[in-house]
Amino acid sequence: MSQFYSRRNLEFLMTEVFKIEEVLKLDVYKGHDLDSIRMTLDAADQFAERELYPFFREMDQIEPKLDQGKVKVHPQVRAIMKKYGEGGWISASAGDEFGGMNLPIMVSSASNFIFGAANFSASVYPQLSMGAARLIETYGSDYLKETFVPNLYSGVWQGTMAMTEPDAGSSLSDLKTKAVSIDDENDLYRITGQKIFISAGDHDGVGNVIHLVLARIEGAPEGVKGLSLFIVPQKMTNEEDKVVLNDVKTTGLYHKMGYKGTPIVHLSFGEQDRCYGHLLGEPNEGLSQMFQMMNEARIGVGLSATAIASSAYYASLNYAKERVQGRKPDEKNPNTPQIPIVEHADVKRMLLQQKAMVEGSLSLLLNCSYYADMAKAGTQDVKEIYRLTLDLLTPVAKTYPSENGMLATSNAIQIFGGAGYCRDFPVEQYYRDMKIHTLHEGTSGIHGMDLLGRKIIMGGGIAFRAFTEEVSKTIKKVKMEILELTRYAEKLNDALFRLQNVTMRLSTMAMKEKKEVFLMDATLYLELFGIIAVGWQWLLQAIPSQIAINENRGDEFYESKLYTMRYYFEYELPKSESLITRLNSADKLLIEVSKDHLI
Amino acid sequence: MSQFYSRRNLEFLMTEVFKIEEVLKLDVYKGHDLDSIRMTLDAADQFAERELYPFFREMDQIEPKLDQGKVKVHPQVRAIMKKYGEGGWISASAGDEFGGMNLPIMVSSASNFIFGAANFSASVYPQLSMGAARLIETYGSDYLKETFVPNLYSGVWQGTMAMTEPDAGSSLSDLKTKAVSIDDENDLYRITGQKIFISAGDHDGVGNVIHLVLARIEGAPEGVKGLSLFIVPQKMTNEEDKVVLNDVKTTGLYHKMGYKGTPIVHLSFGEQDRCYGHLLGEPNEGLSQMFQMMNEARIGVGLSATAIASSAYYASLNYAKERVQGRKPDEKNPNTPQIPIVEHADVKRMLLQQKAMVEGSLSLLLNCSYYADMAKAGTQDVKEIYRLTLDLLTPVAKTYPSENGMLATSNAIQIFGGAGYCRDFPVEQYYRDMKIHTLHEGTSGIHGMDLLGRKIIMGGGIAFRAFTEEVSKTIKKVKMEILELTRYAEKLNDALFRLQNVTMRLSTMAMKEKKEVFLMDATLYLELFGIIAVGWQWLLQAIPSQIAINENRGDEFYESKLYTMRYYFEYELPKSESLITRLNSADKLLIEVSKDHLI
Repeated sequence: MSQFYSRRNLEFLMTEVFKIEEVLKLDVYKGHDLDSIRMTLDAADQFAERELYPFFREMDQIEPKLDQGKVKVHPQVRAIMKKYGEGGWISASAGDEFGGMNLPIMVSSASNFIFGAANFSASVYPQLSMGAARLIETYGSDYLKETFVPNLYSGVWQGTMAMTEPDAGSSLSDLKTKAVSIDDENDLYRITGQKIFISAGDHDGVGNVIHLVLARIEGAPEGVKGLSLFIVPQKMTNEEDKVVLNDVKTTGLYHKMGYKGTPIVHLSFGEQDRCYGHLLGEPNEGLSQMFQMMNEARIGVGLSATAIASSAYYASLNYAKERVQGRKPDEKNPNTPQIPIVEHADVKRMLLQQKAMVEGSLSLLLNCSYYADMAKAGTQDVKEIYRLTLDLLTPVAKTYPSENGMLATSNAIQIFGGAGYCRDFPVEQYYRDMKIHTLHEGTSGIHGMDLLGRKIIMGGGIAFRAFTEEVSKTIKKVKMEILELTRYAEKLNDALFRLQNVTMRLSTMAMKEKKEVFLMDATLYLELFGIIAVGWQWLLQAIPSQIAINENRGDEFYESKLYTMRYYFEYELPKSESLITRLNSADKLLIEVSKDHLI
Repeated sequence: MSQFYSRRNLEFLMTEVFKIEEVLKLDVYKGHDLDSIRMTLDAADQFAERELYPFFREMDQIEPKLDQGKVKVHPQVRAIMKKYGEGGWISASAGDEFGGMNLPIMVSSASNFIFGAANFSASVYPQLSMGAARLIETYGSDYLKETFVPNLYSGVWQGTMAMTEPDAGSSLSDLKTKAVSIDDENDLYRITGQKIFISAGDHDGVGNVIHLVLARIEGAPEGVKGLSLFIVPQKMTNEEDKVVLNDVKTTGLYHKMGYKGTPIVHLSFGEQDRCYGHLLGEPNEGLSQMFQMMNEARIGVGLSATAIASSAYYASLNYAKERVQGRKPDEKNPNTPQIPIVEHADVKRMLLQQKAMVEGSLSLLLNCSYYADMAKAGTQDVKEIYRLTLDLLTPVAKTYPSENGMLATSNAIQIFGGAGYCRDFPVEQYYRDMKIHTLHEGTSGIHGMDLLGRKIIMGGGIAFRAFTEEVSKTIKKVKMEILELTRYAEKLNDALFRLQNVTMRLSTMAMKEKKEVFLMDATLYLELFGIIAVGWQWLLQAIPSQIAINENRGDEFYESKLYTMRYYFEYELPKSESLITRLNSADKLLIEVSKDHLI
């Protein structure tokens, strides 16, 4: 059996770091307990091993094809969707109404992580259905819910998110897709426009594709304030109750560097002026509604990036333990046997980078899930503050794993040497699959602007204060209770202090300078934020590990946690220094340099 | 016409920064002058545009195939090799004896850079022939020279470098390929063994493939001291003067992530015990001989990585100037027209990172070529010191572009957004092609050990002192003569001072500690060294640029140089701080952590 993630680590995070017991005490989750959660993870493991992992390479090699206007995908996709549905994974966090398991968000995040590590491309299809179904559950009329949600949850239909257009990618205010009301009573509209980069936007693994489309109702305001959300199915039932094709045409299939198991298509709506869509929720509220799905999708992107890096880590770890090459630098006798490369310092460094990135990112993402559960069902006093913190951390939890995942998968290749560059081993696929994560659901640059330009300054900095208080609480706890970790707590405290200073400096700048100046280094600010947020996660993980060791419950797992934390504080946290130097500089180079100097 | 590099920049480096006039004054190059060099570059441009660039994508898409034991490559390869030969590019830096152009190494580096930017895979074939031919020229008997060199230079035959074996990649001391003398007079040996990862090791674009094979003569010492170098042709003439196949079998073809235009093969020598090879040079001197080719190849790797990044830079720059998306952060009116993305600060940053990496790396590589020319043909007093500096800088010039090239090509993709992840644009290919550079001709980790474990400490640190003196000379010149640049000179001086301290600390450690401890962070030391060496290159480039501006000869090119230098000092040089923090730490984590903690 191939290992693609560590179950022990996942449970450690869920039970010892984030106390899922607290979550399970919430009224809404009362049907579950630790044992049932473990059984759920067992089932996820089995599903991942049997149905997903065996097809991971093949789905990369046998790409989707566009054949006579219809996308054909790997035949296993149909089986996967069906079994995802049967297993209840698509409706995992949905409530009773549609037969959902009503699992805590932390648990559905955990299972999505397992699925992504086993087969990233395969795991995208159901996640999109899940997001679409939940949007319809939240905003749809009974009619819409009954019509669309059950088939999405059962895996019989596919859901999508259709935002991007040829002239509007990052700039959502420029979306042009048009909606004209034809039937006020039924909220039915005629849709025309082009949507590009639609993941799973058409394929033969399902019976129907349900697009959630952002469009502008005739006469609506300009910009993002005039966007509404529509349900546009590929097939509809007509007045005679016959299933007919809606006027949605697949006009192109993108050929990608990686992520090849999922088709991404170009869709044309209403070429024959008979494309129908149902308005979902209120007119002109489309963007904020869509952001429910987007925000979950962004956490999903972070989880996928982490999952891919996890799989790459175990592939390279196993190789490093088996592959024999070279000797210790102090051993000069060429007659001594060669040693496994895991014993070379530089290989250990590259393994620790991967491990620190994977386990640190997963910790941050499960922390976000914890906040999401609390914001959904916690007591009134914590709800709002956790929602704000989750909002703040979303761009970080999306971007840190995506950006650092590139380095992690690159290191996985390095450990294989030249062999890692070849398709005989999976690591080159991980490297290719990883790169989509810095692009979709908003590029890293867009998330930098989201963090600094929106989340940090919102409510006079209330979310940022909530975040720093959470981190400070961890630091204080360590200083009071776990002396062995004090020096790391101090390092983190120092970094946090500097982050606060930089944030203050930038917030002051926001008031005095043009927005462009304030935001010029937003991507670097996001990078800095990520390093410190994940440093915090490492301290959080070190606490129960050190306690276990102090209480003589220590084993290699806990020791390994402390070594990896040490790696993080020695090799990763210092990267904050360079960023702080730049962020404190007064040089407005990026504003002053013009396109004429880019030659 | 697609732009894949800047001719103005190349000439700026050759004439204004590195004073090729000085090189042209050397006796050995007296046949050339500036005009003839420019004509040579014109010819290189034409060749690259007509014969290389048009096939860049296609050679990626139509991969080499192994068909009945023979590798078939893209048909253009035959034309390319022939025209490379006819154009005199393979023998460019060879002397009269074989009709070479006897070009300065700086000029052949420049033309290789142009070819690599146009079509990396295509540029590898002739470079390998060039290296093999030069080795035979240096160490071969008249018979060997006459037999092999002319056909290698004419592009009719292919040369290769066959070192790696299944159980000996980074660890050359474990090479097992065997040579048994059969004819002392002719230095003919019977060769048996396996060689893997042989670039251009077999293909139908040439009439013969000449392998330079490292093998161990029966009874030779263990380790690298017992390696000898052999010329093993794929086809030989037998005693009746008939061309017959030598016993060299292509047993496998690697399928790679990128670099797909060049086949890499697995070769089996002497399966039928009738594989013949000629000893080249002296027995047991194979490794040091091979390193002539290897060191040139390593500079070649740096050039290729820089060339790919150059091509990616211009692709993303042109896209950024054409693609219209979004508005300035201060513009809230969605009715105003969208702007070209080159005007967004974060896009400028990503372009500047690429430009700084490309032009900084190319500068370092041409500086190395300058040293190579001087070491080859300069006066006695500079020869040795330039040879040492070149030796020291080789791992840096190989690794800096390779590692930073990954970030550069990643940024190129980011600028294209989702489109960059698709095969409709060339940037995803650049990203895939780039990754081989941190692997072949020694991984980055191996080069870290080479730099710190060998080059830095050799001769009591003589090469390191020569390097710091060169950098200090530049700093002093700026401080004395070009006041506008003083603050950058001071920044570099500060970084250099810290590098010297770290180096001193590590050298002291080398005497007190085990070699393993001394070398544990060698890769980070190499990274640090690269950042500072390229910072020096930026100061070197800033000097003539600032002078031109001060003398009212300034134009956008020179201004652009100063902006890019500023970018480097603001955004790249600070990365040295994090590395220095780690390198000054006393934590021996990488030694203390064991494989049992990597779980």
